Amino acid sequence: MDLKEVIQTLKVGIIGGTGYVGAELIRLLSCHKKIEISAISSVSFSGKKLSDIYQNFYNLNNLVCENEEDVLEKSDIIFLALPNGLSEELAEKILKRNKICIDMGADFRFKNGLTYKKWYGKDFSLPELHEKSVYGLPELNREKIKGAKIIGNPGCYATSIELALLPLISKNLIEETGIISDSKSGVTGSGKSLSESSHFTNCNESLSAYKIANHRHTPEIEETLGSISSKDVKLTFVPHLLPINRGILSTIYTTPKEKINLTELHKEYSNFYKNEPFVNVLPLGGTAKINNVRLSNYCQISLHYDAENNKLILVSCIDNMIKGSAGQGIQNMNLALGFNEKEGLDFIPPAF
Amino acid sequence: MDLKEVIQTLKVGIIGGTGYVGAELIRLLSCHKKIEISAISSVSFSGKKLSDIYQNFYNLNNLVCENEEDVLEKSDIIFLALPNGLSEELAEKILKRNKICIDMGADFRFKNGLTYKKWYGKDFSLPELHEKSVYGLPELNREKIKGAKIIGNPGCYATSIELALLPLISKNLIEETGIISDSKSGVTGSGKSLSESSHFTNCNESLSAYKIANHRHTPEIEETLGSISSKDVKLTFVPHLLPINRGILSTIYTTPKEKINLTELHKEYSNFYKNEPFVNVLPLGGTAKINNVRLSNYCQISLHYDAENNKLILVSCIDNMIKGSAGQGIQNMNLALGFNEKEGLDFIPPAF
Amino acid sequence: MDLKEVIQTLKVGIIGGTGYVGAELIRLLSCHKKIEISAISSVSFSGKKLSDIYQNFYNLNNLVCENEEDVLEKSDIIFLALPNGLSEELAEKILKRNKICIDMGADFRFKNGLTYKKWYGKDFSLPELHEKSVYGLPELNREKIKGAKIIGNPGCYATSIELALLPLISKNLIEETGIISDSKSGVTGSGKSLSESSHFTNCNESLSAYKIANHRHTPEIEETLGSISSKDVKLTFVPHLLPINRGILSTIYTTPKEKINLTELHKEYSNFYKNEPFVNVLPLGGTAKINNVRLSNYCQISLHYDAENNKLILVSCIDNMIKGSAGQGIQNMNLALGFNEKEGLDFIPPAF
Amino acid sequence: MDLKEVIQTLKVGIIGGTGYVGAELIRLLSCHKKIEISAISSVSFSGKKLSDIYQNFYNLNNLVCENEEDVLEKSDIIFLALPNGLSEELAEKILKRNKICIDMGADFRFKNGLTYKKWYGKDFSLPELHEKSVYGLPELNREKIKGAKIIGNPGCYATSIELALLPLISKNLIEETGIISDSKSGVTGSGKSLSESSHFTNCNESLSAYKIANHRHTPEIEETLGSISSKDVKLTFVPHLLPINRGILSTIYTTPKEKINLTELHKEYSNFYKNEPFVNVLPLGGTAKINNVRLSNYCQISLHYDAENNKLILVSCIDNMIKGSAGQGIQNMNLALGFNEKEGLDFIPPAF
Repeated sequence: MDLKEVIQTLKVGIIGGTGYVGAELIRLLSCHKKIEISAISSVSFSGKKLSDIYQNFYNLNNLVCENEEDVLEKSDIIFLALPNGLSEELAEKILKRNKICIDMGADFRFKNGLTYKKWYGKDFSLPELHEKSVYGLPELNREKIKGAKIIGNPGCYATSIELALLPLISKNLIEETGIISDSKSGVTGSGKSLSESSHFTNCNESLSAYKIANHRHTPEIEETLGSISSKDVKLTFVPHLLPINRGILSTIYTTPKEKINLTELHKEYSNFYKNEPFVNVLPLGGTAKINNVRLSNYCQISLHYDAENNKLILVSCIDNMIKGSAGQGIQNMNLALGFNEKEGLDFIPPAF
Repeated sequence: MDLKEVIQTLKVGIIGGTGYVGAELIRLLSCHKKIEISAISSVSFSGKKLSDIYQNFYNLNNLVCENEEDVLEKSDIIFLALPNGLSEELAEKILKRNKICIDMGADFRFKNGLTYKKWYGKDFSLPELHEKSVYGLPELNREKIKGAKIIGNPGCYATSIELALLPLISKNLIEETGIISDSKSGVTGSGKSLSESSHFTNCNESLSAYKIANHRHTPEIEETLGSISSKDVKLTFVPHLLPINRGILSTIYTTPKEKINLTELHKEYSNFYKNEPFVNVLPLGGTAKINNVRLSNYCQISLHYDAENNKLILVSCIDNMIKGSAGQGIQNMNLALGFNEKEGLDFIPPAF
Repeated sequence: MDLKEVIQTLKVGIIGGTGYVGAELIRLLSCHKKIEISAISSVSFSGKKLSDIYQNFYNLNNLVCENEEDVLEKSDIIFLALPNGLSEELAEKILKRNKICIDMGADFRFKNGLTYKKWYGKDFSLPELHEKSVYGLPELNREKIKGAKIIGNPGCYATSIELALLPLISKNLIEETGIISDSKSGVTGSGKSLSESSHFTNCNESLSAYKIANHRHTPEIEETLGSISSKDVKLTFVPHLLPINRGILSTIYTTPKEKINLTELHKEYSNFYKNEPFVNVLPLGGTAKINNVRLSNYCQISLHYDAENNKLILVSCIDNMIKGSAGQGIQNMNLALGFNEKEGLDFIPPAF
Repeated sequence: MDLKEVIQTLKVGIIGGTGYVGAELIRLLSCHKKIEISAISSVSFSGKKLSDIYQNFYNLNNLVCENEEDVLEKSDIIFLALPNGLSEELAEKILKRNKICIDMGADFRFKNGLTYKKWYGKDFSLPELHEKSVYGLPELNREKIKGAKIIGNPGCYATSIELALLPLISKNLIEETGIISDSKSGVTGSGKSLSESSHFTNCNESLSAYKIANHRHTPEIEETLGSISSKDVKLTFVPHLLPINRGILSTIYTTPKEKINLTELHKEYSNFYKNEPFVNVLPLGGTAKINNVRLSNYCQISLHYDAENNKLILVSCIDNMIKGSAGQGIQNMNLALGFNEKEGLDFIPPAF
């Protein structure tokens, strides 16, 4: 390691390092060449070694859970991987120290405090922070993220749906209302805590829908897409729990404003993403599937047209823990710190 | 077994006994008290023992694959479990012998020969048979099935979707166009033949959509539901392949003609099915899932309302190999022969 | 149902009806023609409907959890499906009422109180009950079970291993020491309670060994097999957790006392089980697998010989919840009540 | 990339690039900083793009399958990922061009031509190559690998078993005969070709043993371990097919020559591997599991003692496609080329 590299090495901390998001951040950051993990904290496992909680780290990582203050002190940039509702106060502390905060939860995903309150049951207590914060979808807000001090990392379902719809809404090609997203996610989405729905024999060999038309990612998507549309965007969103570890597939049904020529639309759509490092639009005829993106930071999208019913159907796939969470968080970190956006994230998904 | 039972015991034959549908028919019929399996045939495995092909039958079933003629000769009622396009000729032979034919394939699911040709690439060669045949959805055609000589057993996806929509279409409660069914099926749906899509490492830990807005069950559903509606029914149907053995879950998005009161609708809907032995409508608040019906002949349906977007959402679950195929075939057989409709089919799905 | 059947209908109760063993008993007993379920009890779910706990029973079963006393009062034969250590007192109450008790736990699996204490940490408090009780492995103790008032239903792993070794030990063909069983079980074996090991993302796509050479079924197997041997039987037993719902496969390594002729041994071995309704020995060349017995009461066994190292290898498969628990309990009930041993249990395992 | 790096970049080719081993090599080599993939060949897919065969590579890799000669010409080091029996001739061509050959198949795993012939049905046709070749288990042959021109990459099962037994055999601590390995592997082990055993519905929710005491890795392990022992090593090896994509877990039963103190043995055992970058011996009390190493090049081993029966039990886990194949091949390449042994391989296994 030469001098230049030493100088570049920044210190990254994680508050809430032992949940699934924290563990995935640590795993991915371990391969990042420009940073080092300075400290992690955990309320539940304070003083314990990470490798005692997750045995895959045995002998490969010696981090011990410290407290929040240690993380704040030792780090230049801090990920908050906490239950919703706990991030504002910490974000303020981080800002006061002139450090950067990437919130992996929902607290900085909304600009509209009323919407946040309606779905999360809590007022913004520090509204000025939300004016400064940026919604961390690089494909939408890359330039703003570059200078941001507070980044709200998008929800996993939201990422898969917004990436599919961004080109269509921004180019005014589909009806803003009556959009339907039928989404399916692996069980890692529900995290480390034990629950009936993640009990093996309850989800294996099954499929179930939940929070039907009542999931908190709905308003997040509506606000995000509404911000680039002249009209309100309205979405019916139904998530399902798949008996797999990782991955989200969203099948999205939209109504084109006019009958479309799919070949031309596909060209325009692909063009929208042609410079995006992590979004791949499949050629017409191909169909996105979870296998193609699992364990990577890539999003894969395919386009299909039901001409008889004038429905434009999109299939959008991501890994919920990477592009849907930790990977996108690191992508945001790279942008905020001026690194190559792909640093630490350009590994290829396994074929099997 | 007393004399009366002996007299009642009818002979059932299966042409195409070694595909998945055939094997499931044999398994289920083995527990049926009123019939015995007289003969099975197989082109691929002629002369072989069933238990050499499916080892689960070892020592429990001694059937040997014979030829078609043996089955026709030895049986009172014959299931055709064949690739599409091969059933008309056999059905005619069966009718001439004054026996009963239950076709498990698509050949007798359509009344409209043009639709059949468009989707299956073949004209009706014996149109008069199609006038006599009955579409074997007992919840729709019970009385006709009772006297039928040719029964076309519904498709698996079609069963799950039609059962969900029957009450709504027949009572004129939803828009007939713009219906969307996002359906997910286990891998048994693609049968015994090896294929890339059923190669373990290709489907395990993944999810994929296929035949998007282009699946052959679409016109079957449209014709069936159209037959009870004053208007054409139009459906956008997208099937997906789940990494599980059995089960279909269809999430169906419909638009009520008027804003609805879900409690009242649920009452009316439940009432529609209150005497049906195999359809269970969950109480409001419950959500149908595959686990609840797997390995049984039951269909479970739940109702949900997205009031903000006026979308009535239905979740409908069946076991694709039972209510979606072999079980429904036996239900049809029971009706055609005047047996108790539930004979051999009233086993409870396992909880795990 | 004619008069004779009514008279034969006995009342069956289940204490602990809402654990996995209880739920499986209820499912299977629902298809039993000679009995009816009179009452079930549950400490955790007292007053709740079974179908609120397990939604697969919705509309198919109206049982409500009562208390123990109700079950004792209303039933002729009572299954105890309780945590270990709670059965003696209840068994005594049942005996006093001159009723029959089938204990699904470990409390009546041992004759040797010291062994029981060593592994379960508790003395026999009512030793006289253990003199009267019978170990409920029908293939070993059929005649004793017929008149029994207390039956200790065998452990799941124990069943798979004992059935494989019974012919060899009883005919003195293998060394009694140095036996190794490498066993693998589905996750239902760990029951309804949430735990880290049954959290989906912890067991899916993985395999783990546990309680290595320290599992409580070891002494049960040693005592059972020792009872038919002139020497002590010594076993090294290692269980593993498979990412599947149901099924046990035990691969058992034994040392023949003399070099063997596998064809002859297979003949002798098969002969041992030729009249057993639920044990199927595969022809030489076949290999038992979980798929072949899953969701049935059958045990499938195959024999293999490593001549170079003089190891006789057995592969033994059962469904852990049926032949390994609820099904075997019902088989014992059938014997104790003088029913056909196969009543309610002769369904064929699904091929897929 | 500065000049020094350009100079170091070597050209790597893969003959047989479209099987599972080839695809995994390409995926992993894409993250390797010191090499570039110069060419791949495929008989089945000549002229096709890799990303048409494996869609996970879409837009991430532009390789097109060329022919063998192109690979030989363009590459400094060549991986052979071919069916057994095809490597000698190619290895000779590679040697003549003074390039390096890493054979991923079995052809260079044996020094004893008679053993090879017995198990693979073919004589060594170029025996002199086998004198020059090195068995590529770095933990055994690191120094020899460094200068090698032909490396025979070990079998997947063999790797998991040999790593577990190396310390014990080399230190003369266990009986050389009577060793038993009960091993379980994910389905990727059987590769890309469709087969009954890898048909989803045949292996999902099941477990099966195969090639019982008759698998070709048996003689490989016996020869390798025999080479460091004064006596012949004899193994009973039974592989099983797990319903997961990746991973091998071997449970190995050995007999210590003398009663052991497990704490001391563990210390000695751990010490053996203390400098090995890819072998982690768990602390006593821990148990290796597939989850802990999946998708990584690490091997995790745990030690257990059945004192009552004097059996030392080892649990050894690897990812069959990485440490069991492509990863170990790259580790060998790194050694042969003088790179850091961990280059491109030090990613951490995901916790979920």
